[in-house]
Amino acid sequence: MLPLSKANQIIDLALEKARAENFAPLAVAVLDAGGHLVAYKREDGAGIIRFDIAFGKAWGSLGMGFGSRELTERAEKNATFIGVLSTVSGGRMVPSPGGVLILDDNRIVVGAVGISGDVGGNDEICAVAGIELSGYAAATGIPK
Amino acid sequence: MLPLSKANQIIDLALEKARAENFAPLAVAVLDAGGHLVAYKREDGAGIIRFDIAFGKAWGSLGMGFGSRELTERAEKNATFIGVLSTVSGGRMVPSPGGVLILDDNRIVVGAVGISGDVGGNDEICAVAGIELSGYAAATGIPK
Amino acid sequence: MLPLSKANQIIDLALEKARAENFAPLAVAVLDAGGHLVAYKREDGAGIIRFDIAFGKAWGSLGMGFGSRELTERAEKNATFIGVLSTVSGGRMVPSPGGVLILDDNRIVVGAVGISGDVGGNDEICAVAGIELSGYAAATGIPK
Amino acid sequence: MLPLSKANQIIDLALEKARAENFAPLAVAVLDAGGHLVAYKREDGAGIIRFDIAFGKAWGSLGMGFGSRELTERAEKNATFIGVLSTVSGGRMVPSPGGVLILDDNRIVVGAVGISGDVGGNDEICAVAGIELSGYAAATGIPK
Repeated sequence: MLPLSKANQIIDLALEKARAENFAPLAVAVLDAGGHLVAYKREDGAGIIRFDIAFGKAWGSLGMGFGSRELTERAEKNATFIGVLSTVSGGRMVPSPGGVLILDDNRIVVGAVGISGDVGGNDEICAVAGIELSGYAAATGIPK
Repeated sequence: MLPLSKANQIIDLALEKARAENFAPLAVAVLDAGGHLVAYKREDGAGIIRFDIAFGKAWGSLGMGFGSRELTERAEKNATFIGVLSTVSGGRMVPSPGGVLILDDNRIVVGAVGISGDVGGNDEICAVAGIELSGYAAATGIPK
Repeated sequence: MLPLSKANQIIDLALEKARAENFAPLAVAVLDAGGHLVAYKREDGAGIIRFDIAFGKAWGSLGMGFGSRELTERAEKNATFIGVLSTVSGGRMVPSPGGVLILDDNRIVVGAVGISGDVGGNDEICAVAGIELSGYAAATGIPK
Repeated sequence: MLPLSKANQIIDLALEKARAENFAPLAVAVLDAGGHLVAYKREDGAGIIRFDIAFGKAWGSLGMGFGSRELTERAEKNATFIGVLSTVSGGRMVPSPGGVLILDDNRIVVGAVGISGDVGGNDEICAVAGIELSGYAAATGIPK
């Protein structure tokens, strides 16, 4: 449902946006709806935990069914629960903006993008750009 | 002590309640008194972490001997301890309402239901409905 | 792609076959293509490891892209590699017959069934029966 | 030492080889010398454990300092030790051909490629092709 060609296009467009904005080096992961990695690129200079954070933003979005911005807001209200979710998921849920759901024309979730490297807000800008310029809809929170 | 036929009935009645109330898509797990899965159904559209949360609400209830609403209240008072319990249990204890003990006519715990998908309060409403309409008593906190 | 209604039908038909054949009590798990549990039933009397075995037969089939009978044959030739795969997957790959891929009319893998409780060959008979009687095609090895 | 541009080139050339040979759908991971993922692509149709296997072939090669073909041969002679290494590494060492070291002009290891999807020998052919066509040297065993 999310072919490699589209996953790769999302990454390239997200990174194009990052370079245009002069953001810090990014790691960009694209997962299918089942939470499995389809494609990944890490820009030169990004740190060694960036894969896990990028993956966890995307996986956590798929886990709960909403973009990681929503998870971030819930973490501020209920830190303990989010800490537990981190354990439950084996460290695969990261409550920080930059995890964005990918929706097709029928509003079906076909995957998620997770980006890490700059502040969460900037990571998210690139994720949304990559998704929308590839012809999908992006959900940073609960899909409407 | 908790036959498959009853576990399945609890799930179906819980989901009937969820559809009548128009709640979000739910995952419903029924565990026996030993904490082992007897039956499970995940409605279409529920996220990929929902099984683990539903299971963890039920397992945590059996772990402590009270419904997960009580665990949620303790988490607010003592976040560190609940975080440790999460680790101790390998992520099998989730402090959020929606884990409910199943008691028979002699007030013996014969299992637990765990539901995830909507907010905890709504998950719990469905768990209680499923248990009570199946002829058991439900304990959302410490059994009386 | 694999709705709960169909997953549940597969389980019920597999268990019907098991009762007609007088097999031992079974645990039956149905996973979607991403390896996530959609529905599960454990017959009364099945042991407490049966969920993990049934799940692992199905997950392992999806992991490799062929039914677990093929994985079983490879395990006989290369025990070390299969042991490593067990570790790699966190115990989610079980090399024994009874894990069967579910294919739709276009030969797309939409999920897998895993059954445990009797000998692997009998588990597999029930998995195939449940899948085929539900209108899908079953692959116990490499899909043709 | 292994820029994203080169890692990506290695993957694309490896996949070009795979398509020319009509191999099964592949997952291709490129790691830097520190064992961290730089780039990854999974062809449509590859199973859900393929990332972990591809990663583990590459990581295991870096772990020991030789391509995974050598690890495979040692596994045949000393299965127990390889099983222990698998556990020691948390499932990140996979003893099957297809993990190949990337060496620069000074014979310094700058990373590794791991491929999974077809039989190990075919996976390895694609890894070597990708590395060599990108201007690096490949080591499928102990670097000379």
